[in-house]
This record gives sequence, structure tokens and C-alpha cells, in this order.
Amino acid sequence: MEFFFNPKGIAVIGATENTSKGGYHLLRNTLDSYRGEVYAVNPRYASIMGKPCHRDVSSIPDEFDLAIYFIPARFLPQTIEECAAKKVKGIIIESAGFAEAGPDGRILQEESVSLARKYGIRLWGPNCMGLLDGHSGNVFSFMYTDVWKTLLTPGNVSMIVQSGMLSAGFLMMILERGGMSMSKMCSIGNKCDVNETELLEYFVNDPTTEVIGLYVESIVEPRRFLQVASMTDKPIVLVKGGRSPDGARAAMSHTASLAGDHTILRSALRQAGVVEVTDMNELMDYLRGFSKIKRFNSFNGTGTAVVTFSGGGGIVTSDLLHESGLSLAGLSSDTLAAMKKVYPPWMEPANPADIWPAIEYSGIDTVYSTVSEAVMNDPGVDSIIVHIFTNMIDKSLFSNLSRLKEELGKPVIAWLAGIGERMKDCRAGLEDMGIPVFDEMGRGVSFLSALKRHFRSLRRPAEKT
Amino acid sequence: MEFFFNPKGIAVIGATENTSKGGYHLLRNTLDSYRGEVYAVNPRYASIMGKPCHRDVSSIPDEFDLAIYFIPARFLPQTIEECAAKKVKGIIIESAGFAEAGPDGRILQEESVSLARKYGIRLWGPNCMGLLDGHSGNVFSFMYTDVWKTLLTPGNVSMIVQSGMLSAGFLMMILERGGMSMSKMCSIGNKCDVNETELLEYFVNDPTTEVIGLYVESIVEPRRFLQVASMTDKPIVLVKGGRSPDGARAAMSHTASLAGDHTILRSALRQAGVVEVTDMNELMDYLRGFSKIKRFNSFNGTGTAVVTFSGGGGIVTSDLLHESGLSLAGLSSDTLAAMKKVYPPWMEPANPADIWPAIEYSGIDTVYSTVSEAVMNDPGVDSIIVHIFTNMIDKSLFSNLSRLKEELGKPVIAWLAGIGERMKDCRAGLEDMGIPVFDEMGRGVSFLSALKRHFRSLRRPAEKT
Repeated sequence: MEFFFNPKGIAVIGATENTSKGGYHLLRNTLDSYRGEVYAVNPRYASIMGKPCHRDVSSIPDEFDLAIYFIPARFLPQTIEECAAKKVKGIIIESAGFAEAGPDGRILQEESVSLARKYGIRLWGPNCMGLLDGHSGNVFSFMYTDVWKTLLTPGNVSMIVQSGMLSAGFLMMILERGGMSMSKMCSIGNKCDVNETELLEYFVNDPTTEVIGLYVESIVEPRRFLQVASMTDKPIVLVKGGRSPDGARAAMSHTASLAGDHTILRSALRQAGVVEVTDMNELMDYLRGFSKIKRFNSFNGTGTAVVTFSGGGGIVTSDLLHESGLSLAGLSSDTLAAMKKVYPPWMEPANPADIWPAIEYSGIDTVYSTVSEAVMNDPGVDSIIVHIFTNMIDKSLFSNLSRLKEELGKPVIAWLAGIGERMKDCRAGLEDMGIPVFDEMGRGVSFLSALKRHFRSLRRPAEKT
Repeated sequence: MEFFFNPKGIAVIGATENTSKGGYHLLRNTLDSYRGEVYAVNPRYASIMGKPCHRDVSSIPDEFDLAIYFIPARFLPQTIEECAAKKVKGIIIESAGFAEAGPDGRILQEESVSLARKYGIRLWGPNCMGLLDGHSGNVFSFMYTDVWKTLLTPGNVSMIVQSGMLSAGFLMMILERGGMSMSKMCSIGNKCDVNETELLEYFVNDPTTEVIGLYVESIVEPRRFLQVASMTDKPIVLVKGGRSPDGARAAMSHTASLAGDHTILRSALRQAGVVEVTDMNELMDYLRGFSKIKRFNSFNGTGTAVVTFSGGGGIVTSDLLHESGLSLAGLSSDTLAAMKKVYPPWMEPANPADIWPAIEYSGIDTVYSTVSEAVMNDPGVDSIIVHIFTNMIDKSLFSNLSRLKEELGKPVIAWLAGIGERMKDCRAGLEDMGIPVFDEMGRGVSFLSALKRHFRSLRRPAEKT
């Protein structure tokens, strides 16, 4: 698998100078990101972007590891033959027109797989957007060059997707939003050879990957997939496309995936510790959350503390916690006494901690730090949800809380109100401290529920010993 | 009720020049927004902001309609007496320290209500943030002056909330986001006199209000509330705080609201046609959606058409539709033939319409307009979800679709991918055309489900005749 991510030499088959074509972006990105030798292949050019251009793979003077294929589907078998002569280890096939396009394409795809197996060449795709790697910087995909150059930074989340959109347009949004960085993004399309299970296993063993996300329209080796998933401590978050009859039919024409019966898969995934969600944004929110939170002693306390500037926000969050099967922590008398020192005389501290009256009485900085640190130190509290009005506060106020959360293994998640740069700056600052921010209270609560389930499942085997 | 929104003369009791105090913002906003006479009241000043300042209400030389009260709770009974002498019709009490603060506060609140009733003075609040009105421009609330001056524009959504945050910090976010404008925002706090039912009735009859949103922690006259709700065609979207035991307890100390048993209320609300949601953002998303969509012939077709640049997005949306009890429309042979003209030879058109291969084959502008207009004209389609990659397209492409949706009564909702100004510009453009944009596919689908239920409930009585 390694030669897909860090190949020795790459041929771009279908390279072109026409900026409206995919072959242009593939060559541009490969040249701009990859540090090894790049061979442009296209019989129409003698040179492209200052590099010599080869009429076919056979004309390339050297051996090389990886071919990126973006010419019509029908040329694939012949290309595999030529690649075999160059000792190519893998081909990323980004063209469409294979099994997703009908019976002829399916035959072409199956024949290509057989041929590649004969030569020991691995096939990635077809009908996909390739990969990008936040650590090496390699971009073997169509993504706009200026976008990845500006926004791509190394991170701890790796993804396996059967959606070009997720690996391109949507990924741009995720990178623009910030707060989550990528290890590797893999778009696998029809996954005729390299599939989600093999990549899952690769990421389970990849030291730069700490969290794994998937959007798949089928799981082709479900038994092995579930086995790999159940063996790792790394959180795995998955959207399964094609759960419904209409969705399954669409999956067949999208990536030729046979979606299967989801009721069986759903419970098997849950048992294997995979977190299943249903929407793309939800997937990204959960991945961002898991990428930030690395410790959770979820057996320590009895529940969550909510610290909020909004009485209504505290109530809504309490209701949502209840409806997610989570509970509010009971606070100790010590904690209540510490809170009482900054509360007005008429108000008794409680959980949710509605601190607005205390803010008016003792000032915002004192109250936020006093109350959030008091609940953090309460033995009954296992996690904290904090609501912050960003236009009234400086994020540095939370650095002590951030340190405590690591020491005590009590995660903090945040919901923010506010506008403009101040809001964005506060969000970025909190996420730098390992406090994930959710746009909606409900999403934060459902993530917390998944987080707790994940960390509890890790603890279980250890407790048995 | 009218004198709260359009009073003849206002006294601001607790006006101050200290910019860190609420009384400063109340006076500033009233002076800057209201066109009638404003009387500042505070014994410590002879004049404030260039206006004479009165030592008490009795010292005001004229009669006036409305008092805005922001001094300690204990002065309220005396203030009511003085207001009676000035023929005051209503007092907006923004101070806290009443029933939410404990037994003493409760007694003070109840005595104040009795006293006010004696004089025929209506009380709004206490423990609230007052109101603002997008049409008159009146802002009798603490909101930052520069924010409402920049962002407040007249609209068709009115809200009744028991959360200061929703009427201030969160409202700022909503206004910054755009796509929804306010008629009236009413923060009613402990609602000791003016309550949600009376305001609901007012908005049902208010010509500038077309959509009504509520965040309430109790419904004090449930029978009348449900009756008013079931009599109107205007959509009503509600978050009920305090559905859980912890939430209910918190509601008691927030606005002294007795939350009650939610299982009974839930089904009664549904029967009365009220759309219940559970989160603040969800409330705002639904209100924005309802504010845009005024026609929906939901009995026309069999289901929804999905037009998407992303195969994965189409599949996920199909699954979400199925899980929300909605269905994908079957497309007629005429529609399929019209789509086929822009599709590549190997691809058969279907619903969801994954148009990416067609875009590569026929160009993005042609394909989006051909396909979206073909499905719009299909007799089996009652609604359309369109996914747009904003960085590849101009919003003007959808103006024809926008016109058709009004003619045919088939709503269009959108989900966008993209970044930067281009994305924001596309979103604003679509929403100006009456196409609401949802950040998440799932939210759009659940809104569509609520929209359909709402419009079907309106049709039912007519069909009986």
C-alpha cells in the first residue's frame, strides 16, 4: 500500500495543458506536490509545463512505481501491459466508464483486475479522485492547486471515501473551516481492487492516523472489515450510503456498489465499535471532535457539567443530554461552595450552571474561570460542555481549563455564540487547545454520547484483566 | 398589545452614561431607533446624552405610553404607582430578581402584577430583553447598537422567546448569516402578565408576520395556545425547553416556568399543527425555510426530485428522505428523455439525478438548467432538492427555476458546497430567489418533511368541502 502514498516515480497518463481538463490538474498537482520524478504521458505533446512529454508508458526511459490514469477507460488493459514492463506497482485510475457505466464497463473492469493481478500490479479506483496526504504533501487528485497550497496542513484524520465530492469540494469547506487536519484522504471510487477494508487496516497501523472516517456505499469484505475495526482503539466514524432502496439503486450507478441489507450491518458495526452517522457534515463534526479529544476517563464521574451564559441554552442542552441517554452530573458541596463565591446572594449554584447573573455580579473573566475549573475538579463530573459568548471574552481565559482536561481526562466541548472575526478567532483558539467547537448544541451532545461509548468500549477489555 | 410595539412616548428607567451597564444600551437603542419622545430617568444625572434626565417617573412633565424598567426589582411597585399617574399603558421590565430568584422575588412579582392590573397597566417580562421590530426599527433591548444598525432589516418572521440569548447574541448570528429577516422579536422572560399565547394571537393577526417561532419553557394557557395555533395558516415552529427532569428544574430557576409533562404536550402541539424542534439552530433553519416558501401544492406529485453534482450526495439524500418518510419521485418518460439529451450515451437518467457525468459531457450551465427544469415540470415531482458546487456556477442560472417553482407551487431547497465569497454570494442569491439553503443535507430533508406536513394540514379542511 505504501507505494500509493510514497511512490518512487510517477507517470501521469492523460497529462494536458488544457486547464479545463482533469489531466491538467492531475499533472499540476503532482508536479507541485511530489518531490520525485514525474513523467507526463500524452501523444499530442512533446513537452508540457517545461517537462518532456512521453507518447506512451513504453516510451518512458525509467522504471517507476505509480501511474495516475486519466484517459478513456478502454485503454486500461493495454496500459497495464505497458506498466508491467516498467515494474509499476500501482495504478490510480481516476477515469470513469467502468462498472458504474453498465455491463461493458463491468467486463472491462473485471478483465483489467485479472490482468493487473497477473502482473502483481495493484489498482486504485477506477472512477475516483485519487488521494492526498497532509504529511508528505502529495496531492494525486483534481483539487484546485491554490486551495490545497493554502489550506492543506498535516493532521491526524484519515479518510476513505466513495465520493469525489467528499474528497474535493467538501474537503475544501472542511479545510476552510479549520480545526481539523488530514493525514490521508483516499477516494476509492469503484474500488475494483484496493478497498475500504485494506485501507482501514493500513490506517489502523499508520502512526500519523489517529482517527478514521469513511463514506462507503458497500463493504465488500464485511467480516474482515468488522474484525479490523474491533481490534483497534482508533475511533472509526462511518456514513454508509445506500441504506434505503432508492439509495442502494443509486449506489449501483454511482460506484457499482451492491449496498446490501443495512439492518444487519448496522448492529454489526455498532458491536465492532464503529460510530455510524448519516450525513456528511455529521461525519466531519465527529471526526473533528475525535481528532481533538485523546483522553476520556469516562468511568470517573456520573455525568456532564454544563457551564453557560444562557439559561435557555443550559435548559436546551440538558434536554438534549437526557434525550441522548446522558446525564447531568450532581455537583459536590465543595464545588457548589466554590461557585457560590462568585454568584449573587439570591442565586444558588446548580448544574446546568447558568452563569449570566454571576457574570453581572462578579465579572465575566472571574466567573468563567472559577465556575469551569470548579466543575472540572468535581469528582462527579466526567465531561464539560461550555457555552461561550465570544464577543465578550478572550479565549486565553480557557487555557487553564484546557490543561486540567488533559490532566484529569475530562473532555471539554464548546458551543459558541457571536459574530465576525472575534467568533472565528475564539473558535480557532479553543480548537488549538483541544476543545472542539460544534455549531449546534445538539450535535455536540450527540458527539459526546458517541465519544463516551467509544472510550467505554476501550476500557472494557482492560477491566476484565 | 400595540402600545408595546408603537408607543406614544417612552421612559427609560435606569438610564445611565456608564457604557458597561445595560441601562446605557437601553437608552442608546431607544434614542437611536424610536422616533417619539424619550424620557431618561435616573436621580444621579441632570442630563444624559444631551437629553434632560428625570429623577423619577413622577418628574416627567408629560404623559407617555411605555416604560422600560432596568433598576433593582424592589422599586417596581412604587414605579407602577408613578406610571399609573402618567397614564402609562405598559412596562417592559428587563431587570431580574423576581420569581426566578426565589420566594421573595415571587411575592414581589405577584404583588406587582396585582397592582398593575388595578391600574390597567400591562407588564412585559420581568427578567427579559424586551423587543425589537424590523419594520418600525424600534429596539427596546440591549443588543449592540452598531449590530442592529448594520444588520436589522424588515422581514416576515416574528419570535416569542424566553431566552435573552436567542433575542441578542444568537440573533446577531442569525442576522449576520442572512437569508431571514425579522418582523418582531419578543423576549418575555418570566412572562408574569404578557405571555406566549397572547403574543401568538397578536402575530396571527399581524400582517407583517408570516412565520412564527417560539422558544418557551412553559405554556401557561395551553388550551388557548393550541386553539390559536390550530386556527392559523401561518407556520409555527417551537422549541420547548424543560422537556427533561433536569431541564424542567433549570427552567424553574431561569424564568420560574413550570415546565409540565411534555409527552402530553408533544402530541397536542402536533395535532394543532405546531412544528416542534429541539435545538436553537434547528428552530432558526426551519423559520428561514418557512419564511422563503409560500406555496407548496404538496398533493400534486408523488415525491421529491434530487439534482446533484455529487453521486454520494444524491445517495445520502435519498437515504435521508427515506428515513424521514419522504419518497423520491418517479420521473416520467418525457422528463427522462429531456435529461437524456444532455447525458453521456452510457448513462441513463434517474432520480436522484447525478449530473456530474452530464456536466463533463455537456457543460455545467446547460446541464443544471436542463435537468432542474425538466424535473420541475414533471407531474410526479412535488419538490426539488438541488446540490450546487458554488465555485463552478453562477446563481443566475437558477432564476428560471425560481420562477417555475412559484408558478407550479413546487418548492426548491438547496445544499451547497464551496468556499469563500463565491459560496456566500451564491447562498444569498438563491435565498433572495426564495430557495432556502441548508448547511446540512439532513436538515434540509427534515425541514422538507415538516413543510409538507404543514401544507397538507392546510389543504385538509378545503378538501372536505
